[in-house]
Amino acid sequence: MRAAVMRNKTIVVDDVPAPEPGPGEVLVKSLACGICGTDLHALKHAETMIEVSRRTGGAFDIDLARDLVFGHEFCAELVDYGPATTRKIKTGARICSMPLILRAGGAQTVGLSSDHPGAYGQYMRLTESLLLEVPNGLATEHAALTEPMAVGLHAVAKAHIEGDEVPLVLGCGPVGLAVVAALKLKGIEPVVAADFSPRRRELARTMGADVVVDPRRDSPFESWKQIAVYKDPAKGPKFEPPIPYAPYRPAVIFECVGAPGIVSAIMVGAPSRARIIVVGLCLEPDTYEPFFGISKELNLQFAIAYNGAEFAATLHNIAEGELKVEPLITGHVGLAGVAGAFEELASPERHAKILVNPWRN
Amino acid sequence: MRAAVMRNKTIVVDDVPAPEPGPGEVLVKSLACGICGTDLHALKHAETMIEVSRRTGGAFDIDLARDLVFGHEFCAELVDYGPATTRKIKTGARICSMPLILRAGGAQTVGLSSDHPGAYGQYMRLTESLLLEVPNGLATEHAALTEPMAVGLHAVAKAHIEGDEVPLVLGCGPVGLAVVAALKLKGIEPVVAADFSPRRRELARTMGADVVVDPRRDSPFESWKQIAVYKDPAKGPKFEPPIPYAPYRPAVIFECVGAPGIVSAIMVGAPSRARIIVVGLCLEPDTYEPFFGISKELNLQFAIAYNGAEFAATLHNIAEGELKVEPLITGHVGLAGVAGAFEELASPERHAKILVNPWRN
Repeated sequence: MRAAVMRNKTIVVDDVPAPEPGPGEVLVKSLACGICGTDLHALKHAETMIEVSRRTGGAFDIDLARDLVFGHEFCAELVDYGPATTRKIKTGARICSMPLILRAGGAQTVGLSSDHPGAYGQYMRLTESLLLEVPNGLATEHAALTEPMAVGLHAVAKAHIEGDEVPLVLGCGPVGLAVVAALKLKGIEPVVAADFSPRRRELARTMGADVVVDPRRDSPFESWKQIAVYKDPAKGPKFEPPIPYAPYRPAVIFECVGAPGIVSAIMVGAPSRARIIVVGLCLEPDTYEPFFGISKELNLQFAIAYNGAEFAATLHNIAEGELKVEPLITGHVGLAGVAGAFEELASPERHAKILVNPWRN
Repeated sequence: MRAAVMRNKTIVVDDVPAPEPGPGEVLVKSLACGICGTDLHALKHAETMIEVSRRTGGAFDIDLARDLVFGHEFCAELVDYGPATTRKIKTGARICSMPLILRAGGAQTVGLSSDHPGAYGQYMRLTESLLLEVPNGLATEHAALTEPMAVGLHAVAKAHIEGDEVPLVLGCGPVGLAVVAALKLKGIEPVVAADFSPRRRELARTMGADVVVDPRRDSPFESWKQIAVYKDPAKGPKFEPPIPYAPYRPAVIFECVGAPGIVSAIMVGAPSRARIIVVGLCLEPDTYEPFFGISKELNLQFAIAYNGAEFAATLHNIAEGELKVEPLITGHVGLAGVAGAFEELASPERHAKILVNPWRN
């Protein structure tokens, strides 16, 4: 099959063997697949990802000596069943799936593993039990957004928002935009979002942010405080020394940048008792000042990916039109365009999500 | 009055002016006061504390050009009332209080501020509304342990333990021991505790730890896993990729060391979805590897001090004999012994809590 392949740390288009489905697995034809920031990171910093994965239990099974086909945000067409399958979905149907292969030894990733090619190749193997049929009428490209949007749903679920929290979303790349959309879907408001890029701020508004902040002009934390302050101080929290007084609605801050220094800056700027949801994928070591956490009794919740129920709910929400993903799609490429798309995505002004169709040239 | 004073970054005994109570304040005679690790830290690293306090909103109001009298873990005798007081407690009664002065500008600390001498001086001023009368029959020295034990109660409250969590307490100095005692008081078991010092491990057992670990011999995390593993895997959590599978009862890890590197080591060693309560007071910047937090979806809850209800509950628990503090008291000094006691406390083998009686020489 044709595929865009990571080889010698560059992306090349070549013929590679099509994967074969094992027991309980299926063969699918890749139809559309988003390019994820994790793919960009893996191309540039593969060694870091390999090392960090080895030490944390192996989410990314990358072998730089072998070809690797990226692509884990996909919609595909069911082509064939492997052995020991229940065959509940008809071949020819469109499916989405969490990008995982479940085998006796555990779960392995699809599109971030040298063993399981992702959707920048024309075919993939997937685990039958994870398949979700794409409802009729839902555009293939929109279904392909299920995976990144599920990340937002999961991050918001981990925040356990139940009162009158005011969320602050820092970073409006695809992850931050998915968080904004998931917050709006839950009816939470106002949502404050910040990004240096005008284009991304505009997208944040489109996805539902009520207030957008340019950190070059205004402190996101000060802007948040103006919005979240209790107009009637009697309704605010009691002052409990030695925690600094914070007369604001509870803060839930989503870290969606994933670069060193951001968590530390949030801990400095956050109001007392803020909950910080770390969704950004920072793979490097980082520094922080513990006393800001201690003196304000901050809470840090790290989050990754989604569970099966959240993934299925996200596909449903997109299909029902409750989650509008169209504005996020800013480009379309065939396999020959993947390398260039990786470079274009470095600029936040041009793109949010570029979709790869591996059957187009 | 006589006092042990921090002057030129050493402890000297000298005469200093007795404080005068302002409106809503009282004058008390210090009877017994524990030496806290924060005092040791402030003597050695005053500049760090001043800087960190300035940047975080001023918990410690230290002016190195002036005398400072430490001592914030005290039992005292009510001597006199200042103006504008309600006088509900009789003079001559013994009292405990959160070490705070509440004034119009906010709360100021007693014993960690150049404005409000603590109980290493013969007299203090306190805020009347914070006074708690010590019940008859409760030893003055035991009542003085209210403050450090309340820190443990608060840390355990912040952990929101409600299921079959198995706690792991790292560091069995006074803070860790207070956490162990608060866990036992809540009926939580088994409690696993770790410390390099044999004496501290022994104290941890006395305070209620079910299993103690010497980190020089065994990994606290591996020891915890042996105890917390579900014997019947069907009762354990479901495997939800990409989070590494952890077939254990939920982990609540109390960081009670307060030195750089500990939080990072916990994030490396902790099982998936562990909650980490950071009670140790680390005043230096620290480094960590975010991906351990992300890949295991860890939660970090920073905690400091206690609230008024927790402080009052702790005094009650000590008075009722539900919280036995006697084993923690390992030394007694007068003012002349304070400087030497600070040095002795550097060795974990000799002491847990040394009590200062500023009327004794």
